Amino acid sequence: MAIIQCDIRRGRSDDQKRQLASGLTYAVSEITGEPVDQIFLVIREMPGFNFVDAGEHVAEYVPGPNGVDMAGAQQLRDRGVID
Amino acid sequence: MAIIQCDIRRGRSDDQKRQLASGLTYAVSEITGEPVDQIFLVIREMPGFNFVDAGEHVAEYVPGPNGVDMAGAQQLRDRGVID
Amino acid sequence: MAIIQCDIRRGRSDDQKRQLASGLTYAVSEITGEPVDQIFLVIREMPGFNFVDAGEHVAEYVPGPNGVDMAGAQQLRDRGVID
Amino acid sequence: MAIIQCDIRRGRSDDQKRQLASGLTYAVSEITGEPVDQIFLVIREMPGFNFVDAGEHVAEYVPGPNGVDMAGAQQLRDRGVID
Amino acid sequence: MAIIQCDIRRGRSDDQKRQLASGLTYAVSEITGEPVDQIFLVIREMPGFNFVDAGEHVAEYVPGPNGVDMAGAQQLRDRGVID
Amino acid sequence: MAIIQCDIRRGRSDDQKRQLASGLTYAVSEITGEPVDQIFLVIREMPGFNFVDAGEHVAEYVPGPNGVDMAGAQQLRDRGVID
Repeated sequence: MAIIQCDIRRGRSDDQKRQLASGLTYAVSEITGEPVDQIFLVIREMPGFNFVDAGEHVAEYVPGPNGVDMAGAQQLRDRGVID
Repeated sequence: MAIIQCDIRRGRSDDQKRQLASGLTYAVSEITGEPVDQIFLVIREMPGFNFVDAGEHVAEYVPGPNGVDMAGAQQLRDRGVID
Repeated sequence: MAIIQCDIRRGRSDDQKRQLASGLTYAVSEITGEPVDQIFLVIREMPGFNFVDAGEHVAEYVPGPNGVDMAGAQQLRDRGVID
Repeated sequence: MAIIQCDIRRGRSDDQKRQLASGLTYAVSEITGEPVDQIFLVIREMPGFNFVDAGEHVAEYVPGPNGVDMAGAQQLRDRGVID
Repeated sequence: MAIIQCDIRRGRSDDQKRQLASGLTYAVSEITGEPVDQIFLVIREMPGFNFVDAGEHVAEYVPGPNGVDMAGAQQLRDRGVID
Repeated sequence: MAIIQCDIRRGRSDDQKRQLASGLTYAVSEITGEPVDQIFLVIREMPGFNFVDAGEHVAEYVPGPNGVDMAGAQQLRDRGVID
């Protein structure tokens, strides 16, 4: 038995959440040997402002092509974490 | 930014935990568009006895071939959940 | 001291949440010997879609007689988990 | 589906944890209408020192008659919370 | 690395949440020696009714001068916990 | 009422945990207006290996002067996150 909790910024589509659910469940099952039947997941969604990394509030999720987060990428670029 | 918490029964090898870490991180990143840099995971381990499914304590994890859980599979078989 | 977190599907009435609060608090107190004064609970509510069991999203909670969940029971019936 | 997390001080007997598991599961099921089959619980145990109430560390659990916590009761008495 | 989860009653201003984010991050960093860069926080907000202390639902947060909670203070006064 | 959960790597001294407890409690109280009496904290400790940042396991905590983490700082330096 495994319990997975995933706190993410709000704004993902139902389809993304569907993929997230099956992606996490099957990853945990394959790697740990837990039967799929014994894996339980809750996805919690909150505004980006409620997530804090290194003391800074994260930007809201702005869906771009293929679900890439436009605003978050910009914020990381501004801080020099990614190019 | 995503925070993942994964509560599992104790007994997995470092190698299984290494695969779990990268499996969960890359699954969440690909599906939600979060950069890998923004995904944080904590794995918590407890005795099987501390996990309860439908009012019943789960058996301890007993590693079988390919990490399959021998004891857990037997317990599910006894309850008729799997064959 | 005990901290209880209870993640449930949204849709329960205030009266159900009131019973849940006192049911959980007194159950933990009686069994563990914690004084009631030292038991703290947070109830989190999310859409059924955010709950995933065995890789499948759970149906939304649809209150039936005595608070029984009509939609969830149907879903379990479809999967053969209950009759 | 409901996920319950219960963080308690270490030191309870297996029998207390068994009662806790069934007490919590059946309380949630009866009150919310979730089938027992859809209720998942993890019990986490930590030293009393890791629990903090009003800025003060809680005493370790010292089992007395009927599981009553001797040390904790004394601490609450010292703070004037109970008689 | 540290993961902080803070469940509070809804109703705080963005400015309070901004102070909370930096207050918690810097407190943990100074005390534990974790670099600020390795501290991740999620703030979850729920109605006061979803918080239960000693079996009683907490009043909703009603902002008073300097963010003091008017309703909560009254409730504690009624129970004799504060003057 | 506020519930704070703090997951950290094991290895901090009782004195560091004592400071952490009071630091977090008073920070939350001052900023949110919650009375100290209504703030509950649980500190969970796990091996560094159970913490994963950007897909990489975090080094164990190695206490240096003033509680600074020697191993973690080295790891961040190797990844180019800090100088």
